[in-house]
Amino acid sequence: MNAEPRTVFIVSDGTGITAETFSQSILTQFELPFRQIRMPFIDTVDKAHEAVREINNYGETSGQEPIVFTTLVNTETNAIVRTANGLIMDMFQKFIAPLELTLGMKSNHEIGSFHHNTDTQAYKNRIEAINFSLEHDDGQTNQNLADADIILLGVSRSGKTPTSLYLAMQYSLKTANYPLTPDDFERNQIPRGLIPFKKKLFGLTIDPIRLSEIRNERRPGSNYAKIDNCRYEVSEAEAMMLNNSISCLSTTNKSIEEIATTILQKIKPANELPGPNESPKTMFNIN
Amino acid sequence: MNAEPRTVFIVSDGTGITAETFSQSILTQFELPFRQIRMPFIDTVDKAHEAVREINNYGETSGQEPIVFTTLVNTETNAIVRTANGLIMDMFQKFIAPLELTLGMKSNHEIGSFHHNTDTQAYKNRIEAINFSLEHDDGQTNQNLADADIILLGVSRSGKTPTSLYLAMQYSLKTANYPLTPDDFERNQIPRGLIPFKKKLFGLTIDPIRLSEIRNERRPGSNYAKIDNCRYEVSEAEAMMLNNSISCLSTTNKSIEEIATTILQKIKPANELPGPNESPKTMFNIN
Repeated sequence: MNAEPRTVFIVSDGTGITAETFSQSILTQFELPFRQIRMPFIDTVDKAHEAVREINNYGETSGQEPIVFTTLVNTETNAIVRTANGLIMDMFQKFIAPLELTLGMKSNHEIGSFHHNTDTQAYKNRIEAINFSLEHDDGQTNQNLADADIILLGVSRSGKTPTSLYLAMQYSLKTANYPLTPDDFERNQIPRGLIPFKKKLFGLTIDPIRLSEIRNERRPGSNYAKIDNCRYEVSEAEAMMLNNSISCLSTTNKSIEEIATTILQKIKPANELPGPNESPKTMFNIN
Repeated sequence: MNAEPRTVFIVSDGTGITAETFSQSILTQFELPFRQIRMPFIDTVDKAHEAVREINNYGETSGQEPIVFTTLVNTETNAIVRTANGLIMDMFQKFIAPLELTLGMKSNHEIGSFHHNTDTQAYKNRIEAINFSLEHDDGQTNQNLADADIILLGVSRSGKTPTSLYLAMQYSLKTANYPLTPDDFERNQIPRGLIPFKKKLFGLTIDPIRLSEIRNERRPGSNYAKIDNCRYEVSEAEAMMLNNSISCLSTTNKSIEEIATTILQKIKPANELPGPNESPKTMFNIN
């Protein structure tokens, strides 16, 4: 395989995050290294011409056909960028035209209407969800648990914190998380403060061997990280979840995104779930 | 405008997050309410047939042509889903075929290679960055600041925390954040522990009127939230950043994504930046 990365341009009138995420999921289908050059906020004719110059210049000096992913909504800037000498992957236009036909209406051609608008209730809910999840990370407080959308439960290093923050950031879900510790196993009871909120509980578990690896990176050689201790904690935690009828998911080998998506699927049928960055308040209720 | 939402299906062999994000950015171009039905993890022929049955059933009972966004990489399941009666927005195939031509190679057709693989160094860096950012939220500690990629600075409620977590989650950047408080303004100096790391500092500021609104939601009627106090804090903070040559960005009316993208643009030329979820360690160095 050639180690020289192939250059890809990401041209957007907003942050370019949508274009970048999408282009990456496509580019991973090819066994080549890629180098992304981001060109966000291309929202004027001048900036569009400048982008074309840079792209063409790259093509001439490198001798390689530039690959250009674009999500320009504005037809004028889009027409300019399309004149660049390269493979233009125009993500919006390809899909908007057939949609206009099916929906029987014209699109807005509004720049970056996706991410903007910080004054909406949805945006406030998102920030509130992030703050709530931070304040309720690792069982820091039992206050306001009635406001939680989800409460994650699991042994230390089973993936609770990143999952909580992701659910808050992407889905505006107020997500608390509680550790299950040897103290809980001795008492043979879930943390007392959680009992009134059993319906919001969701368990995370993990393969003990993987857990031991992760804990050893954090605290090498500790009893906490020992495989026997990890086996004990995981088996006690799983038994506790089973006894309390708490749905439980193994996070071993799952990305944060996969854990979050699976939780959302389990706690509610798909058609009542909010989308990313959308307010869940009217559509989402697991109480 | 018709208030009845139009139904859109999101069919993916992975989490469906890429498809969902992209479909939303396209659908916001139309002034219609949409309802998304997510069908993640469609990774077998059986599940693909089941998805087609659900889509067709919806079309027949609603009398509306279903709109279907798909990101199925597997050609077999994709061929099945394409038989559904509806407008099929096949996001991958539309772009992969021309790319195969330009690159002169075949794609993998690997399911969800984007989000998986939790064993990679990139994945570990991401989790480490999230933990680092949490531990260094709101100036909690001065330890290990030498490991930080970015240190955000700003008055309370200027947007530091969500931005830090986003930079960690999406770009694996270890992002600390420090509040600038009236104590700092009296001493007329940035927090002492930060002085050795001036090159990593990035300031966030905000319009005092907006700041006062945000603080009033948090602590109604407090001196903390009063417009005069907000004006004082913001003007002192901006002067302090200017005196210390710290780049500064106003977060007023900016989404978390826009703030993060702008910071990334300012601290490094675009072509050396990592993509989302990519390891920045070899490409990113602002020290």
